[in-house]
Amino acid sequence: MTPARTGPAFVAEWRDRVEAALDGFLARELAGVAPAVADPIRYAVLSPGKRIRPLLMIAAYRAAGGASPRIADLACSVELVHAYSLVHDDLPCMDDDVLRRGRPTVHVRFGVAPAILAGAALMPLAVEAILAAARPMGVDDARRRRLVETLTVASGANGMVGGQLLDLRAEGREVGREELEAIHTGKTARLIGASVSMGGIAAGADGERVAQLERFGLRLGLAFQAIDDILDLRGETSELGKESGRDAALRKATYPGLFGLAEAERISRDLVRDAQAELAGLEAPGALRDLAGYIIDRSH
Amino acid sequence: MTPARTGPAFVAEWRDRVEAALDGFLARELAGVAPAVADPIRYAVLSPGKRIRPLLMIAAYRAAGGASPRIADLACSVELVHAYSLVHDDLPCMDDDVLRRGRPTVHVRFGVAPAILAGAALMPLAVEAILAAARPMGVDDARRRRLVETLTVASGANGMVGGQLLDLRAEGREVGREELEAIHTGKTARLIGASVSMGGIAAGADGERVAQLERFGLRLGLAFQAIDDILDLRGETSELGKESGRDAALRKATYPGLFGLAEAERISRDLVRDAQAELAGLEAPGALRDLAGYIIDRSH
Repeated sequence: MTPARTGPAFVAEWRDRVEAALDGFLARELAGVAPAVADPIRYAVLSPGKRIRPLLMIAAYRAAGGASPRIADLACSVELVHAYSLVHDDLPCMDDDVLRRGRPTVHVRFGVAPAILAGAALMPLAVEAILAAARPMGVDDARRRRLVETLTVASGANGMVGGQLLDLRAEGREVGREELEAIHTGKTARLIGASVSMGGIAAGADGERVAQLERFGLRLGLAFQAIDDILDLRGETSELGKESGRDAALRKATYPGLFGLAEAERISRDLVRDAQAELAGLEAPGALRDLAGYIIDRSH
Repeated sequence: MTPARTGPAFVAEWRDRVEAALDGFLARELAGVAPAVADPIRYAVLSPGKRIRPLLMIAAYRAAGGASPRIADLACSVELVHAYSLVHDDLPCMDDDVLRRGRPTVHVRFGVAPAILAGAALMPLAVEAILAAARPMGVDDARRRRLVETLTVASGANGMVGGQLLDLRAEGREVGREELEAIHTGKTARLIGASVSMGGIAAGADGERVAQLERFGLRLGLAFQAIDDILDLRGETSELGKESGRDAALRKATYPGLFGLAEAERISRDLVRDAQAELAGLEAPGALRDLAGYIIDRSH
């Protein structure tokens, strides 16, 4: 269950806490729920993952001066949304992937209809994770409302789901850089931006600092998607834990597809550099900076 | 777009306000969203419907002493969750329905993948509807939190989605009354119970009153499901606005399938009577009582 690369010390320390928090949250929420319901949900969430979005929230929280170890509980919320997006992305009518994180995808293991439903159950669970974590952390009512709103906006028509719909519509035709960025911003960068800005909100950061963290997250999210597409094109299945070459087979809109591999790598490095530039002035940007480096290092 | 039956005066008065509130909410939330994303979402929500769940919330709110006309905005939240459940229920891998509310289902009109995504986008929108409506109504932070939690719990693994999963697992085999009620409670009654109890929470009702309203809603929800199944078996497609006889074709677990038509009708009447008995002591139960009658009258 150990990911292939461990990354910086921050990652090694906090990933275990995120795993424990996810496990504990699902154990509490799914107590008494029939195995037919609970099993596909647990399978979707508790498969081995890098937990990059929770780690980004935790690093942003600490960079903005937050100190509660319970941030790992709040960080479950973004992983639950991410896990749900993976379940739906992998469906036969979407990307039709049979392998994810090195294991059969949820619909291969449990069937298509249970996969759709188990995925859908993760969105309300993500909101419940915020409600459950906020009070013990000392997050006040107004900030709890902003946490919920930030996650739901990033997950819905203006964010992840909207981006997935645009992505489907773009398959098999030429898109320009502007449309490509709109697709990637929606399907990937908004949730990463929300992960980072929610860390700031939970730490009590002011509006300007939260906006700064969100800009960092949005740029990093675009870089992250570019690197995912580069890895897919290169065919590094063992690194991805899923089938490679799927984007080209589906004629997806990607940076390497649009600009070629070398230019896509340059663009991704520029995006990470732009993201890093947003970290100026933070109390403790170290872990956030290291994480950004860790994310781009996946391509080496 | 006018539903086949208008029902009591309360329904005639408030249904138009709910339609206007849904229309306004989606116009605001989907402003600037690409038509590829917005169109299936609007189609899923703004199809002609009886809006029973929002009407129940509004009637419960007024029964508990609430007076703000903005309750129609809060009531959008439960209709958004209901609309999302219909989109997913109708999918080829679920009930495979081609007709809903008298029109082609979302996947027939827009494709299977867009239907899954548009359905999924409605859950975060439902939470945003609560956040947007609560403050102008004067709902305080603690009650806003309870509204969000009530809706998410009713929608997720312990509620609607869990019930849908149990329903799938029960297809084609014999179930007893206990299992049947567990399925129907999850897939139908929890959201109806939440609709009613959220009306009480928004009105500032105390915990005992909210619990009473929820019991009313749960019993009414079971009756509602029983009547739906009776209508389906009788083949009254024009009343349902969808294909009839689907339950038998899918070998679904239903009251008439388990007990026969006459006994199922008796059970549904008993459930409505039990529900009505829960209304004792409310400030103004009239509209709630009428609505319960209106719901059972669909079967006549």
